Amino acid sequence: MQSITFPNTPILRSFAAIAGQKEGGGTFGKYFDRIEQDPLFGKKTWEQAESALQSETFRLAVNKALLKPSELDCVVAGDLIDQCTASSFAMRKTGIPYLGVYGACSTMAEALLLAGMLTDAGYCERVCAVTSSHFSTAERQFRFPLSYGGQRTPTAQWTCTASGAAVVTASGEGAYLSGGCIGRICDLGVTDATNMGAAMAPAAADTITRYLHDTGTKPGDYDAIVTGDLGCIGTSLLTELLEVQGVEMGSIHHDCGAEIFDNDAQDTHAGGSGCGCSAAVLCAYWLPKLAAGHMHRMLFCATGALLSAMSAQQGETIPGICHLVELRSA
Amino acid sequence: MQSITFPNTPILRSFAAIAGQKEGGGTFGKYFDRIEQDPLFGKKTWEQAESALQSETFRLAVNKALLKPSELDCVVAGDLIDQCTASSFAMRKTGIPYLGVYGACSTMAEALLLAGMLTDAGYCERVCAVTSSHFSTAERQFRFPLSYGGQRTPTAQWTCTASGAAVVTASGEGAYLSGGCIGRICDLGVTDATNMGAAMAPAAADTITRYLHDTGTKPGDYDAIVTGDLGCIGTSLLTELLEVQGVEMGSIHHDCGAEIFDNDAQDTHAGGSGCGCSAAVLCAYWLPKLAAGHMHRMLFCATGALLSAMSAQQGETIPGICHLVELRSA
Repeated sequence: MQSITFPNTPILRSFAAIAGQKEGGGTFGKYFDRIEQDPLFGKKTWEQAESALQSETFRLAVNKALLKPSELDCVVAGDLIDQCTASSFAMRKTGIPYLGVYGACSTMAEALLLAGMLTDAGYCERVCAVTSSHFSTAERQFRFPLSYGGQRTPTAQWTCTASGAAVVTASGEGAYLSGGCIGRICDLGVTDATNMGAAMAPAAADTITRYLHDTGTKPGDYDAIVTGDLGCIGTSLLTELLEVQGVEMGSIHHDCGAEIFDNDAQDTHAGGSGCGCSAAVLCAYWLPKLAAGHMHRMLFCATGALLSAMSAQQGETIPGICHLVELRSA
Repeated sequence: MQSITFPNTPILRSFAAIAGQKEGGGTFGKYFDRIEQDPLFGKKTWEQAESALQSETFRLAVNKALLKPSELDCVVAGDLIDQCTASSFAMRKTGIPYLGVYGACSTMAEALLLAGMLTDAGYCERVCAVTSSHFSTAERQFRFPLSYGGQRTPTAQWTCTASGAAVVTASGEGAYLSGGCIGRICDLGVTDATNMGAAMAPAAADTITRYLHDTGTKPGDYDAIVTGDLGCIGTSLLTELLEVQGVEMGSIHHDCGAEIFDNDAQDTHAGGSGCGCSAAVLCAYWLPKLAAGHMHRMLFCATGALLSAMSAQQGETIPGICHLVELRSA
């Protein structure tokens, strides 16, 4: 049994999400705390813009918890930029103990898992989990210069300009983290860097089936099983992979990447992606529903494709990972 | 009080280190488990070589623990390559739950801190912490193409081709982790990417003084305070910064980066660096001394410079971080 339980029920004390203009025009537009019209967030470079986005989302979540940043014992953060500089530059002036994590688009689930452990075990009283992504930093780094205007393939996903942050505390009342599962790397040989849903779906199937097995639960025991950013193609593959193992999720399955954009009005092909995508949808839409008691038990299973521009150019396959946290209402 | 104690004394069950030819010719040559003469480790690319280096070091540590990889509950790993692919590609076939971390050259201390927490709190029984670096992956990524043959500045450090791995278990006997301290990001405005010792020294001073304060200890209470890869210049700066605060480390201070190369015979300017440098020196030299009871109490304080090639090109300053773990003999 590799799944983890949190007997001391770490509390999801507050959460915040900020999104860019395109994401704001999508399905969850009215749920984001803020929609920023300026893709540069008032800065000079895309990288500084993403740091500002993450920093402001972090501060919003901390404010909502009625805390000052200095009252946090740790921040667990990550992003997609080389050497995770969006996070380290966002947090460098806070003076808060900092754990940098890298799980590609699974980072928010990894950060929440660690925030849960740190507070559940009593090492910390108050921890913030935060991640971000930005269309323009990711597009330049992983794909093409923006001005090149390359045509996107039908399987491609659109990296979201978005950030989500959640403050987790050892004590208090409210929705809480009840457990989780650390992902295993799965690599079934996908080499198409414009079809990351296919690369990540096996990891999602692996983690979800392990967690259901370890906890003796079935999909019907949850109000929602929310995956990160498999997108439309990855979602279909996950459904197939789970059905083979006799697991039917049906209508309780939702994928942040497949749902964040309006597929008719905002053709983004296979959906959204980026570690800010699932973080922002979780913090803007799902956590408030849980906190309000409109649902009681959910799984958040963020998936990541552990490739780099270099590994893709060298012809490597794309390893996927999926970390999972179980969240419950008070 | 932000420092962490491990009441259940997670055991340092085994450790292993593999180094490249140049590192093998340095101060700790006779202590490494293996010195690999082929910088490509039999692979086609530098990145694959680093993955092979990390993978083999991991397997060696796990073998020494008399375990099979499948008996591990988690591996905590990281490296310097964009998107931490050295680690994810090294671990993708193991089937072990995987937590990717990024702390630049501080990564081994961050991984050990998390391995300590996972086992001390009872979430896992057996965890491996592993990091690596490779001269040729780092040089190309952060500095210049190798064949360019650029002249190195006097403050530059030499990224080590090395990897260190340690297996930490919840039960057993032997040397153990007694506590630690999560680093805070410190940025005093250094912009010279060829003087990373200067960028990291303030973070080392911050973490060491916080830990001494929180635990009510002084340097004389430890047999050794081992920093990561400050190198010669960073070491001098750390000494100065601590003296201002009335902390004198004297001869118990050692820096893996300043000591790994023979400064006379192997002129590497300011010393070695890379997250494999401190990991390999810790696992090859310091942990065996501790395990043999030749010393009893030490601090391992690995430092990292949280820059990227992009952030340096954009004129950003270099944030530093230092994570710390306290290690004791049985």
